[in-house]
Amino acid sequence: MNRKTRTALAVIAALSLSAGSASAIQQDAEYYVLEKQFAEAWAADDETVRRKLAALEKKHGKKPNIVKILVDDVGYSELGVYGGGKLRGAPTPNLDKMARQGMKLLQYYSEPACTPTRIALNTGRHPVRVGVNQVIFPGTRGIGLHEKEVALAELLSKAGYATGMFGKWHVGFGEEYAPTEHGFDEAEWSEGNPATWIMGAEGEEMTGHVNNRALNWAPARKQTYYDEGGVWRAKKGEKPEMVYRFSLARYDSYDSEVADRAIDYIERKASGEKPFFLYVGGKANHFWGAHPDFRDTPAQTNTAAQMTEADYSLGRILKALKDAGIAENTLVVWSSDNGPMYGFHPHGGYSMFDHGEKGQTFEGGVRVPAIAWWPGMIEPDQDPLDIVQVTDWYTTFASIAGVKKKIPNDRIVDGVDQSALLLLGEDHGRRDYVFFYNKGKLEAVRKDWIKIRFGGMIFVPHYNLMQDPAERFPKEVNYNTYSYGMTLVVQEHNKLIEEFPHRKQTPYQREPDSPFDPSPRWSWESSQKVDW
Amino acid sequence: MNRKTRTALAVIAALSLSAGSASAIQQDAEYYVLEKQFAEAWAADDETVRRKLAALEKKHGKKPNIVKILVDDVGYSELGVYGGGKLRGAPTPNLDKMARQGMKLLQYYSEPACTPTRIALNTGRHPVRVGVNQVIFPGTRGIGLHEKEVALAELLSKAGYATGMFGKWHVGFGEEYAPTEHGFDEAEWSEGNPATWIMGAEGEEMTGHVNNRALNWAPARKQTYYDEGGVWRAKKGEKPEMVYRFSLARYDSYDSEVADRAIDYIERKASGEKPFFLYVGGKANHFWGAHPDFRDTPAQTNTAAQMTEADYSLGRILKALKDAGIAENTLVVWSSDNGPMYGFHPHGGYSMFDHGEKGQTFEGGVRVPAIAWWPGMIEPDQDPLDIVQVTDWYTTFASIAGVKKKIPNDRIVDGVDQSALLLLGEDHGRRDYVFFYNKGKLEAVRKDWIKIRFGGMIFVPHYNLMQDPAERFPKEVNYNTYSYGMTLVVQEHNKLIEEFPHRKQTPYQREPDSPFDPSPRWSWESSQKVDW
Repeated sequence: MNRKTRTALAVIAALSLSAGSASAIQQDAEYYVLEKQFAEAWAADDETVRRKLAALEKKHGKKPNIVKILVDDVGYSELGVYGGGKLRGAPTPNLDKMARQGMKLLQYYSEPACTPTRIALNTGRHPVRVGVNQVIFPGTRGIGLHEKEVALAELLSKAGYATGMFGKWHVGFGEEYAPTEHGFDEAEWSEGNPATWIMGAEGEEMTGHVNNRALNWAPARKQTYYDEGGVWRAKKGEKPEMVYRFSLARYDSYDSEVADRAIDYIERKASGEKPFFLYVGGKANHFWGAHPDFRDTPAQTNTAAQMTEADYSLGRILKALKDAGIAENTLVVWSSDNGPMYGFHPHGGYSMFDHGEKGQTFEGGVRVPAIAWWPGMIEPDQDPLDIVQVTDWYTTFASIAGVKKKIPNDRIVDGVDQSALLLLGEDHGRRDYVFFYNKGKLEAVRKDWIKIRFGGMIFVPHYNLMQDPAERFPKEVNYNTYSYGMTLVVQEHNKLIEEFPHRKQTPYQREPDSPFDPSPRWSWESSQKVDW
Repeated sequence: MNRKTRTALAVIAALSLSAGSASAIQQDAEYYVLEKQFAEAWAADDETVRRKLAALEKKHGKKPNIVKILVDDVGYSELGVYGGGKLRGAPTPNLDKMARQGMKLLQYYSEPACTPTRIALNTGRHPVRVGVNQVIFPGTRGIGLHEKEVALAELLSKAGYATGMFGKWHVGFGEEYAPTEHGFDEAEWSEGNPATWIMGAEGEEMTGHVNNRALNWAPARKQTYYDEGGVWRAKKGEKPEMVYRFSLARYDSYDSEVADRAIDYIERKASGEKPFFLYVGGKANHFWGAHPDFRDTPAQTNTAAQMTEADYSLGRILKALKDAGIAENTLVVWSSDNGPMYGFHPHGGYSMFDHGEKGQTFEGGVRVPAIAWWPGMIEPDQDPLDIVQVTDWYTTFASIAGVKKKIPNDRIVDGVDQSALLLLGEDHGRRDYVFFYNKGKLEAVRKDWIKIRFGGMIFVPHYNLMQDPAERFPKEVNYNTYSYGMTLVVQEHNKLIEEFPHRKQTPYQREPDSPFDPSPRWSWESSQKVDW
């Protein structure tokens, strides 16, 4: 959105409006500032969107299907249409075609890491509000997609959707966090990114290393600390069963297997009475585990192989929708969960935003590619500047499915309804602000083109992202005095947290399968000895 | 080009071939390695190109017109089609359209600064061979586009072209370097980028500052050291006359004035018997001097204003060609002379290559946007990976004009003939190497995707530009032992320099117009005094 920062007066007026707002959702404070400002325009847009969706529903006899594909660690500039592709040794013809036929977002933000982004997508809330502040690793229990959260699939189930989930889930370990406990009718998933466990995969030569094509070496026993990595399967109400434990080979080919499952689901559900919500979690550029069929890229990196595979899988999924004759009644959203991971360079992805990587709230860590596709509904070849944040899919999908009113209003939902952006195009977005949380702390805030980072004693660096997209030239400002507008944005945000406190979750470590037993001695001497 | 590094044997075979090569040009050693390797394919391509050009000439009754537009300091990611445009506050609809209708180069290299790039363009030779190693500033005499160089416009004159030059010339100060002394029939030019002098423009309030919209302050007198900035005009054989001295206002609007001259030239020459070569030097992102009509960009930077103006000017020029009905017989090449200049951030441009700026041989300094357009001859919507270097335009234009054989062979010409790339598309380029000279020194070499930088005692950093486009993760290698192929590339390059030594030019400073007279005292005290 390309509009001026509002006055303090508008804040007050807007906040007073929020209680009695037409929307049942409790949004963040800044949203109401915009809502107040653009009330008329938004109402008109809403009506147009409603008419378009009604016409489509009439034509197809059911609500539109929704497919969400989430890939791992794909940096902003990896796709051809984002300036990468063949320049990175991994042409992305299918994603490029998807973008040309749909909408490529230029300012899309994830949370800074895997689990946080997945929590945000599934709850519409910044993970800090859910009590999940960072990646959840194996062995951790008692934290995840909390039972009191109303997950996206639950919401869509209420709208009469069939729901299926395949691939990387990673929102908590244990049966209570299974996708089938959170609204999915059926699922086949990995509790996290298998690379987390693969170090200890049974019977593998590589055991004890992170070492596919000579990556990093990491100390590990034959069995890792927790030995629970594998693929699970369940239907709603069933106890999850493990389909298989991961092996290196199985991990390498897992992404294509997930695409197979997704396609099978599409074929099964295409002509059903119900619309469906399909959630696909792919590994894409997650540094390790390149499918043998895709390794022969000129870059000779796992990243390039995985990007090529992810692009191919995306193409297969879109083809399945077309073949089933349901493309025009299906919204597909493809996006990345966070930026690249340079610890595994050159295998962990790349971003031309030189500041930031996975785990950081600099642009490189959170500004990622996202493409929306819906033939006949989303105009082709669009690249709006409108800001979209991962939480927005929650509210947007609910809106498109007609269950926005079923979003609970006893908590803050950060996701705003971007259906007008999707269906009406650039400048119809509903967000010109983003709160960047990392490990439970508010690290940065963006409003309009200005991004402020916290941390200094009195002065904080701020960036004009239009003048300096990669955050190279911080200007130090006194946050309170000189950034009055920004100060208000954060102040109102914090006030609402007092009113709607964050959920508290208390993680603990479960007993390990085998104790972590480092090398029993630190000293080492050569076996080659000379006697003198 | 996407081919494997050749063996040492191939080098020797190729070098022995070079003497008796079909091409009369003395290219650099590495070229012959490729020529040997791709002899058959290149011969076939040459024949196809010849037939295409012959058919066109038959249709239009004359050789194709050539328009070269060179802009200043535009970084790789400034244009919409290169990932910038509206994200930088400066949409580039005309350049984007040009790219969609033509060929956008993804791996185009300039020299690292203004004068070097202009020398390279006009001679087809790395400026070090011409004896010009860096930007020439006012007051410097005895160095520039040497009379013994055979300039591009001379060559095209021999091919029967009408030749015109408008805008920033900047290849030497003094009448002997005037464009009309180097092959242009007519010209109206500035000897350098006016910003160099504008500090001392007569009668300007801003005198003594570099201060348009609060940029840098620089000490200067009312009159600068050399007071010769202005626009010159001449026809071949005439003594140049100064049209006007620059003023701030004149400098601000100079780029649009240059576009006017170019369009006037096109209109005058369109229906002439002769084809024409038009060379346009625009200022684009050169940090200072935003035209009042283009200042209202959301980025509020001179860069954004100038980029917007440059895009508009480009559109006007292409429109003039279409309106005159000669677009299909005109090759237009638009490119930048080097990367951005961060000393004037946010007004001096930007590049998402975080390493390097103007004056440096990191990618940010030399990898710049370049678009070629020729309706009916260059297929639309191409983005080849083929490497092109600024010197290549010299040889390519000569080839297209049919005077390649008139390029002198008593010296090394670095520019290779890229007409097959333009007319046949990706993978038809003739270069997989680049030598990066800066201030007379060979700083880096690229072969295939590997770029080596010199400087270490024994080990040199090298980068795989596909894995690491922005040169963030150097791998140190022993240049001689572990980079045998690269060592050979440089060794043969150096051998040829012994055979064809660099031209020597001896610059000197002319007597200044007014002596540089800094503030006569260093101390300062406040005029506000208290008596106590």
